[in-house]
Amino acid sequence: MDIATIIGILLGFMVITTAIIAGGGWQIFIHIPSMAITIGGMLCATLIHFSLPQFLGIFSIVKKTIIAKVPSQSELIQKMVNYAAINRRDGALALEQEIPNLDNSFFIKGVQMLVDGRDSEQIRDFMSIEIQYLEDRHSTGKKILEFMGTAAPAFGMIGTLIGLIQMLRNLDSPDAIGGGMAVALLTTFYGALSANLIFIPLAGKLGIYSKAETTAIEMIVEGICAIAQGDNPTIVREKMQAFISQGRREEVKATV
Amino acid sequence: MDIATIIGILLGFMVITTAIIAGGGWQIFIHIPSMAITIGGMLCATLIHFSLPQFLGIFSIVKKTIIAKVPSQSELIQKMVNYAAINRRDGALALEQEIPNLDNSFFIKGVQMLVDGRDSEQIRDFMSIEIQYLEDRHSTGKKILEFMGTAAPAFGMIGTLIGLIQMLRNLDSPDAIGGGMAVALLTTFYGALSANLIFIPLAGKLGIYSKAETTAIEMIVEGICAIAQGDNPTIVREKMQAFISQGRREEVKATV
Amino acid sequence: MDIATIIGILLGFMVITTAIIAGGGWQIFIHIPSMAITIGGMLCATLIHFSLPQFLGIFSIVKKTIIAKVPSQSELIQKMVNYAAINRRDGALALEQEIPNLDNSFFIKGVQMLVDGRDSEQIRDFMSIEIQYLEDRHSTGKKILEFMGTAAPAFGMIGTLIGLIQMLRNLDSPDAIGGGMAVALLTTFYGALSANLIFIPLAGKLGIYSKAETTAIEMIVEGICAIAQGDNPTIVREKMQAFISQGRREEVKATV
Amino acid sequence: MDIATIIGILLGFMVITTAIIAGGGWQIFIHIPSMAITIGGMLCATLIHFSLPQFLGIFSIVKKTIIAKVPSQSELIQKMVNYAAINRRDGALALEQEIPNLDNSFFIKGVQMLVDGRDSEQIRDFMSIEIQYLEDRHSTGKKILEFMGTAAPAFGMIGTLIGLIQMLRNLDSPDAIGGGMAVALLTTFYGALSANLIFIPLAGKLGIYSKAETTAIEMIVEGICAIAQGDNPTIVREKMQAFISQGRREEVKATV
Amino acid sequence: MDIATIIGILLGFMVITTAIIAGGGWQIFIHIPSMAITIGGMLCATLIHFSLPQFLGIFSIVKKTIIAKVPSQSELIQKMVNYAAINRRDGALALEQEIPNLDNSFFIKGVQMLVDGRDSEQIRDFMSIEIQYLEDRHSTGKKILEFMGTAAPAFGMIGTLIGLIQMLRNLDSPDAIGGGMAVALLTTFYGALSANLIFIPLAGKLGIYSKAETTAIEMIVEGICAIAQGDNPTIVREKMQAFISQGRREEVKATV
Repeated sequence: MDIATIIGILLGFMVITTAIIAGGGWQIFIHIPSMAITIGGMLCATLIHFSLPQFLGIFSIVKKTIIAKVPSQSELIQKMVNYAAINRRDGALALEQEIPNLDNSFFIKGVQMLVDGRDSEQIRDFMSIEIQYLEDRHSTGKKILEFMGTAAPAFGMIGTLIGLIQMLRNLDSPDAIGGGMAVALLTTFYGALSANLIFIPLAGKLGIYSKAETTAIEMIVEGICAIAQGDNPTIVREKMQAFISQGRREEVKATV
Repeated sequence: MDIATIIGILLGFMVITTAIIAGGGWQIFIHIPSMAITIGGMLCATLIHFSLPQFLGIFSIVKKTIIAKVPSQSELIQKMVNYAAINRRDGALALEQEIPNLDNSFFIKGVQMLVDGRDSEQIRDFMSIEIQYLEDRHSTGKKILEFMGTAAPAFGMIGTLIGLIQMLRNLDSPDAIGGGMAVALLTTFYGALSANLIFIPLAGKLGIYSKAETTAIEMIVEGICAIAQGDNPTIVREKMQAFISQGRREEVKATV
Repeated sequence: MDIATIIGILLGFMVITTAIIAGGGWQIFIHIPSMAITIGGMLCATLIHFSLPQFLGIFSIVKKTIIAKVPSQSELIQKMVNYAAINRRDGALALEQEIPNLDNSFFIKGVQMLVDGRDSEQIRDFMSIEIQYLEDRHSTGKKILEFMGTAAPAFGMIGTLIGLIQMLRNLDSPDAIGGGMAVALLTTFYGALSANLIFIPLAGKLGIYSKAETTAIEMIVEGICAIAQGDNPTIVREKMQAFISQGRREEVKATV
Repeated sequence: MDIATIIGILLGFMVITTAIIAGGGWQIFIHIPSMAITIGGMLCATLIHFSLPQFLGIFSIVKKTIIAKVPSQSELIQKMVNYAAINRRDGALALEQEIPNLDNSFFIKGVQMLVDGRDSEQIRDFMSIEIQYLEDRHSTGKKILEFMGTAAPAFGMIGTLIGLIQMLRNLDSPDAIGGGMAVALLTTFYGALSANLIFIPLAGKLGIYSKAETTAIEMIVEGICAIAQGDNPTIVREKMQAFISQGRREEVKATV
Repeated sequence: MDIATIIGILLGFMVITTAIIAGGGWQIFIHIPSMAITIGGMLCATLIHFSLPQFLGIFSIVKKTIIAKVPSQSELIQKMVNYAAINRRDGALALEQEIPNLDNSFFIKGVQMLVDGRDSEQIRDFMSIEIQYLEDRHSTGKKILEFMGTAAPAFGMIGTLIGLIQMLRNLDSPDAIGGGMAVALLTTFYGALSANLIFIPLAGKLGIYSKAETTAIEMIVEGICAIAQGDNPTIVREKMQAFISQGRREEVKATV
């Protein structure tokens, strides 16, 4: 559960909502047709830009990155050090009963390969292809969110143009000018808000996640390969610690 | 037939049209002179920017990428595995009668080269030049669409400037102000809509297609070369599967 | 004579002019002081940005690229094949009398070097430096046109600001407001039109030309070097055809 | 203490404040709800974009780069030359009592490694990893500040849209129009001012600092490694001076 | 003395001034507080962004590049050829009395190194470091000018926002609206004019100068090294001419 994303979105909407309610007449800000133009137009452009599976896949990727938990680095190291000890004491087969305790699919796959007696070369080859696909998936997700972040304000502006043209057509009824203008500006408001509070920051978060997840998998690969070569627990810890900074290394040592 | 592109464009225009009709007075949104300025100006700038053959070629490329079907990866693998079996059982000449069943020109050319007894080196050289030209063609198409996507809003703005200047000239007749402004804004509306619903997303889709098509051709080249070297069907499948992700690999195995 | 550029510019101005005349009162669109601000300011900024020789050279480069003709690839191949035949039948000296039939200075220089008995290494060295200078010249020309394409709208906006400030100063005479605003917007109009119909597309065309001309010269160098090595006409044709796509290769064969 | 940053921010706010007070009615420029929308929205977007530790870390990094002092190059050289002399006269152990005089943690760590008798290879390896982490930290800080610099104007515009829509809703009370517009524009003003006077320039300064600090650490590493190899003071000075320009080199010599 | 820069700036201000005077009431365009906001705010942001020495150094660099003269290439070649002849006739020491005739510090330093009997390897090493520092200095200057070119319009807009808010506050006095708006727009005008007529083009010119000066120094290094190796005058000329294009090479030969 990514607490920063959740807090950011909730707080962001609270700030905006408070400002709207404080100004009075919040009802004018809820306008279904304006939402339909901005969000509908943006989704259609996204559908044209990407392929159908990419378009449908984005929602699950976004959900997963908000909910999924990047494995803690110190926990990863501690587990891997334990497995190195088990491997040297009881042999690789004894690792099989540890698999149910794992929740990271790459870690499970790696331990499975150890149990199957694969050598470190095979493990590294297999894992590097999987990392490639993971990065591809994340980068496509990021591109879709970034495109949404540029398309939403564009369709907001298109909606405002439609509203303005319709309003200007009946300038004779001056009473309607204010309301018409207000409604016309709503689509620009929806487009700017969704892009700047949702799509652009989420695309950024996806990039942060992608980097953290890739580092975690690289640590797993390094650890599994060290075990496959029969390295002792101390060396396994040292090899995995090369991925963390000096300051945090001390802290990991303390807790491990 | 690219269903996402078709749905996206139809749905996009439906959303916009509904919004226009709901606002009443849709007639004002149909204004031929305004369309002529926006689309005509954009086409002229495109004509100046690119060479005549490039300009004329873009329409066929766009049409082809919307209508053409990227070959299914599992089908490609299945066919290639069959051909590998035929090649080892009956020799390369027996493949000639399979050519009428193919609809991908690269695949046909590849099988033809097998029948002609070319070795894998020659096939790879020939195909890599063709991939180069395919990518060149796609990248030129993408550049033209992207240029259209920036030129359309620019000429929309130019049209609005013309309309504004003409309107401001006769401010004495205040009744005409609203209508004049409405018409002036139409070109900006046409430019923004065509760029954001058509040109920019289509340029993106061309990029997606280009990548998928290039991958398919690389799979074909890999398969044809394996057959030319006399590999058995199992190895041919393995070599071609290196291009697909783990998850989809299982699925391909299941269906094949 | 680049027909696309000519048609694009003429048609573009026709479209804009028709829209202006249809709206009535075209006289207001001709305003010499507004033109002076937009074009004059843009030219001054260009003069500051680049050196005097670069600034003066751009006009001749633009003129040359609009008027000059990129040599036809099939004609180049045909001529080179003929020269290869002459070279093997009568020796390199016999090529001297072909020079008056050539109009491309690189081709002339190349044949001259053949007549002078230079070897292929020397020819390639010499020509590669010349290609370097050609690309430099084209890329400077492109940069100047692109700068003009950003400076023109900027000075258009500066002109509009001047006009607005002057108009706002005498708001007391409300009759003058409309006319004042109209004149103020003219500079933005000139800036946007010249950038989007002239400078930006011409910069693009210069890039297309640069690539085509560079390819032609690379073909000439390849052909001249092949002749210098004493290759027979068939090999000369094959080496030069490597620069053209499969489809066009057939067509070249047919016409040659 | 970075005097340029302090002066720039103070002077910048003085210029703006003077302009506001001179225009009269400065009270209207202090509007807490408008600040809440602009700054609150921007902070929420930043929280969504980055991870919680990155978000919380930025304030300390910014504070440190404003307050912290990049070590003077001539002082660094002078100290290192002294240590080289001590090392050759009294041995590496004698350097231990110099550590309390140092305030740069990298310098302390380096001298400690000399005292511990590490060889130059080990020192260089260890330090290069630390430089990597320093650059990572600085580049994340720069990215966060740059994102704030684009998010602040965006939420300023969103706030203005909210204000405009609320104002247009009650156009019937024309007296309120001016005040409503003024308040609506405040968020755009806050966004533009904070981005252009704080976030964007601070991101730039972080880049300048990062480069200076990295150079200082590279000089320390070079010096420490030279001492570890037993180089004499003159060679240590020459090796460290390679990092400074000719002009400043003379000056360093003079003061040293 | 860079004639293009001088003419461009003078002519540019003349064009703008003429337009202002022709419109009448030029007094309104001179408004010290508006200038203070735009230029003051921009300078403060620049001060925050860069370090104090970089900020103070930019003025001298700009002045130097406007006034300083890039050494003429044909003159450089001619002098170097003479020195090669003197070197072979009278020995390197005889070059010492030529130093007072030189005004380029790199050339002086190079000849001094010849007189000192340094070999070509040492000269090349020393000079390449100096070229590095020259490019660094020029690139920092360019970055500062480019930042000023984006900061000036930003603070122009901030000034206009302040003016608008102040004007909207007292909409009750409609007579003041025009004048208030006019003054508010002045800062945007100052920002746009200074960026587009001064900062952005000067940054471009700095780039052109940097390239020309670097080429000149590379020619000097090439020539000095050739003399240090005892090459005869003809070879020295050929080596230096490799830096100029074919067309200009003839012209240099003619004048030399």
